Amino acid sequence: MQLTPRQLHIVEIVKRTGPIAAEELAAQLHLSRAAIRSDLSILAMSGYLEARPRVGYSYLGKEQTTDRLNHLRSLKVKDVQSVPVVIKEDKPLYDAIVTTFLEDRGTLFVVDARGHLTGAVSRSDLLRSAIGQMDLNKVPVGVIMTRVSNLITLSPDDSVFSAARKLRLHGLTALPVTRELIIETTTKVEVTGVISLGIISGLLADLA
Amino acid sequence: MQLTPRQLHIVEIVKRTGPIAAEELAAQLHLSRAAIRSDLSILAMSGYLEARPRVGYSYLGKEQTTDRLNHLRSLKVKDVQSVPVVIKEDKPLYDAIVTTFLEDRGTLFVVDARGHLTGAVSRSDLLRSAIGQMDLNKVPVGVIMTRVSNLITLSPDDSVFSAARKLRLHGLTALPVTRELIIETTTKVEVTGVISLGIISGLLADLA
Repeated sequence: MQLTPRQLHIVEIVKRTGPIAAEELAAQLHLSRAAIRSDLSILAMSGYLEARPRVGYSYLGKEQTTDRLNHLRSLKVKDVQSVPVVIKEDKPLYDAIVTTFLEDRGTLFVVDARGHLTGAVSRSDLLRSAIGQMDLNKVPVGVIMTRVSNLITLSPDDSVFSAARKLRLHGLTALPVTRELIIETTTKVEVTGVISLGIISGLLADLA
Repeated sequence: MQLTPRQLHIVEIVKRTGPIAAEELAAQLHLSRAAIRSDLSILAMSGYLEARPRVGYSYLGKEQTTDRLNHLRSLKVKDVQSVPVVIKEDKPLYDAIVTTFLEDRGTLFVVDARGHLTGAVSRSDLLRSAIGQMDLNKVPVGVIMTRVSNLITLSPDDSVFSAARKLRLHGLTALPVTRELIIETTTKVEVTGVISLGIISGLLADLA
């Protein structure tokens, strides 16, 4: 909502000195009460001010929430992503498990010797391996990972809303933010970030 | 923002037939253009309608987002919680691991024979046990769980925002929704629901 300079002035006065009666407010602005009547009704109806009989106008502070929601709308994945934790595909499962604990991550991204993304392993994949017949010190991460061709990915310029929807749609806890590179006619993928349920949930916490 | 019946009527007409000129809108309402001037300016300033010269009023649809944000503010934990998945404290770790896969949950809540909450185990606790020296078929869940006295909990009437903040503050993926019972002078805790990062992230996805 775009406020006029006069409305912004009214909001400022009420924020500083409210609750304040309409007459007193008009006096401070060197205007008649009638002159500010429509401004006051707009401000009250749109949640900036609260009007109470025999008390006057108080600041409700919803302005900030609207600002935050607009801010959230403008946020892209690259603005809120975390640094991805990666592991080389030839490392044993045991190393991957230790890495999830050391880095406190539910999902690790798997890369080849050149650092290109080849897959991902989740804590749940690792738990399944740990109770199975696999030798955790010998089987490499590459054997159990979800391959890059089957991964759901995000682009740096995707909105945080589309990230939240993808996480829900696919029932995942984290998504890699990737970009493609063409190296000698072959398309390679680089992982540049990660968006987790924790990041999205934190954005909602900030909206309150 | 609370709209008057006339403003709601205007929004409906513009939604159905916009872009529409102010004169035509007034005619449809059997009112003069002057009579609806302040309604139109309120609706335009608060983002419901967009006014464009020589085109008229169009519906912007921000109403829905504002409504969704207001709806979100009114939501309590009990309105969005999931059914908690519980396991008895004397069950072996192996059963807990299988339950996390069958129910697709990152956190299980642990209960005693009477169904009272005694603790919680996460997928990460179970993974740590699986690679340790523990006999997964013999060690009961009660041995490795976080005890109820150390759990962070939510009340059914907490706001979803406070749930999101608690999840972030404590770096957790799920929180139990609990209520206390006094049974023969002893306080017992019942788990009535669960709030996960996935639920909170889904609420944000719906805000877009």
